[in-house]
Amino acid sequence: MRAIRQRGLGGPEVLELVELPRPEPPEGHILIEVTRAGVNFTDVQGRATGMRTMVDSGGAPQRLSQDDFPVVPGGEVAGVRADTGERVVALCGTGGYAEWAIALEELTYPLPAEITDEIAVALLVQGTTAWHLYTSCARLSGQETVVVQAAAGGAGSIAVQLGKSMGAARIIGMASSEEKRQLALSLGATQAIDSAPEGLTDRLLQANDGEPVDVVFDMTGGEVFEGCFAALAAFGTVVVYGVASGAPPTIGARSLIAGSRSIKGFWLMDIIRTVGLEGALDDLFARVLEGDLRPVVGATYPLGEAARAQEDLLRRRTTGKLCLDPRS
Amino acid sequence: MRAIRQRGLGGPEVLELVELPRPEPPEGHILIEVTRAGVNFTDVQGRATGMRTMVDSGGAPQRLSQDDFPVVPGGEVAGVRADTGERVVALCGTGGYAEWAIALEELTYPLPAEITDEIAVALLVQGTTAWHLYTSCARLSGQETVVVQAAAGGAGSIAVQLGKSMGAARIIGMASSEEKRQLALSLGATQAIDSAPEGLTDRLLQANDGEPVDVVFDMTGGEVFEGCFAALAAFGTVVVYGVASGAPPTIGARSLIAGSRSIKGFWLMDIIRTVGLEGALDDLFARVLEGDLRPVVGATYPLGEAARAQEDLLRRRTTGKLCLDPRS
Repeated sequence: MRAIRQRGLGGPEVLELVELPRPEPPEGHILIEVTRAGVNFTDVQGRATGMRTMVDSGGAPQRLSQDDFPVVPGGEVAGVRADTGERVVALCGTGGYAEWAIALEELTYPLPAEITDEIAVALLVQGTTAWHLYTSCARLSGQETVVVQAAAGGAGSIAVQLGKSMGAARIIGMASSEEKRQLALSLGATQAIDSAPEGLTDRLLQANDGEPVDVVFDMTGGEVFEGCFAALAAFGTVVVYGVASGAPPTIGARSLIAGSRSIKGFWLMDIIRTVGLEGALDDLFARVLEGDLRPVVGATYPLGEAARAQEDLLRRRTTGKLCLDPRS
Repeated sequence: MRAIRQRGLGGPEVLELVELPRPEPPEGHILIEVTRAGVNFTDVQGRATGMRTMVDSGGAPQRLSQDDFPVVPGGEVAGVRADTGERVVALCGTGGYAEWAIALEELTYPLPAEITDEIAVALLVQGTTAWHLYTSCARLSGQETVVVQAAAGGAGSIAVQLGKSMGAARIIGMASSEEKRQLALSLGATQAIDSAPEGLTDRLLQANDGEPVDVVFDMTGGEVFEGCFAALAAFGTVVVYGVASGAPPTIGARSLIAGSRSIKGFWLMDIIRTVGLEGALDDLFARVLEGDLRPVVGATYPLGEAARAQEDLLRRRTTGKLCLDPRS
């Protein structure tokens, strides 16, 4: 089968299109004929650092060493089960950038006929993350102002769309370009502001009629976190679910006590290994079918252009979920 | 009237019993004939550092300088309203260690006849704090294990007693002596363990059948916070509502993300200046009257022995709420 092989740590040059034997599924695993493989930031980060999440061993992060290579990257696929012919979307950990992949049966989810592969892949990780930011982290009462960082991104664009039905009175989307801010507004953001750290606190307050904000979904860290935290109301919550800046915030307890503020960490892996993704996926699929949710789907690249897809993602040249088509 | 005057910052020697004119209540304030004044850690801390909470100006902490002295300490009193003759408990900010004190009308709460002064003073700050640790910070579902630090202390002893009815499956009380642990058990703690930081994580896990704990009410900080945080389950929460050790914790976001854990700050002043204390007090009074709650009342000292009361509190020689009697 055709597959992308990563021969070591490094830049896009470590990825190459090769012929490999079709993988054999071990006990409890499913062989899937891949029709779309999702491209994620974690794939790009893992290419350079070797860090990857071992989805099939409870999520313990693992750092690959040179001895572990070559590997086939790619943690999420849509495709067809080899055993039953059923369309599925699956978390495969690694091996997704290929014509065939294997996944644990309990991390393989059936797809309604009306859900396209691209939408399925857009919802599997980023959609369920956005869903749990509300349902597991920040339960809202209909009064709150919610700030969504990277509002045109994978999780952010879903979080913006879910906001009103999850009880947000107002949704402030943050994005780095005018085009992305327009997208956030078209998805239902009440306001859209520039995500640059300079003056961020003032822009947040201004976008909320001069009032501090109640909930922030932070996947950036660093100065952006600081700017958002400074705009947080008493009893407010920052949900931290990523550190895209590479600068994880440290929070002093005194700054939480005065104002009775909260910081909540969130990692989808904790959901995967406890309640599972079914509840979130079922609800997200239903919303798509009812026309209430429109995942933002970006370009699909031929499998052989995986390196270009990763670089486009890394350089923020894209909008919407990127996929690879193993058959082209 | 007789009052305790603090002439500057320092040890117990800065407190002296003096005769002062009865205070005149400004507009919106109530004159109260004090029957019991509560003694708090914040009084003792404020004696040395000058820090005090300005309850009548929205809670902004203020540091007294030598120019501000002398002052009459004491932030909470039970007594009788001079204008209506009604029994009340009140947050007065300062001036409580005296025969007469003044408090904002909205921080003055009527007392049911069956509630003694000592119980009222025990509930006003520490009781309402314990109540909000559950109702505003850590909503429980009946499945959780809750860890209560200082389980024989003012807020802790109430938190232990409220636990079951607030949805805790198990309550682990932490205390520094065998006598205090026995008290915690008698108040309804499922387990009581030594609060020393050495080996604390192991003792917590052991007390919870080897499982990590779900909620911690932390008022210590420092190594005790670290020991508790290390025993926290995925999706667990530490509510930080004080820093008795003087070492406020700093929390790295990464340690919250992996495990989807939360840190919530809590400060009663945020409740006082928003929803107010009435809801908590009404419920706490009702629980006392129904026999479901037994605030731990300690010694009552003559007003002139305020310095000794503060030192006994500081040296941890006492159990239960300490009061001063201005008429003895």
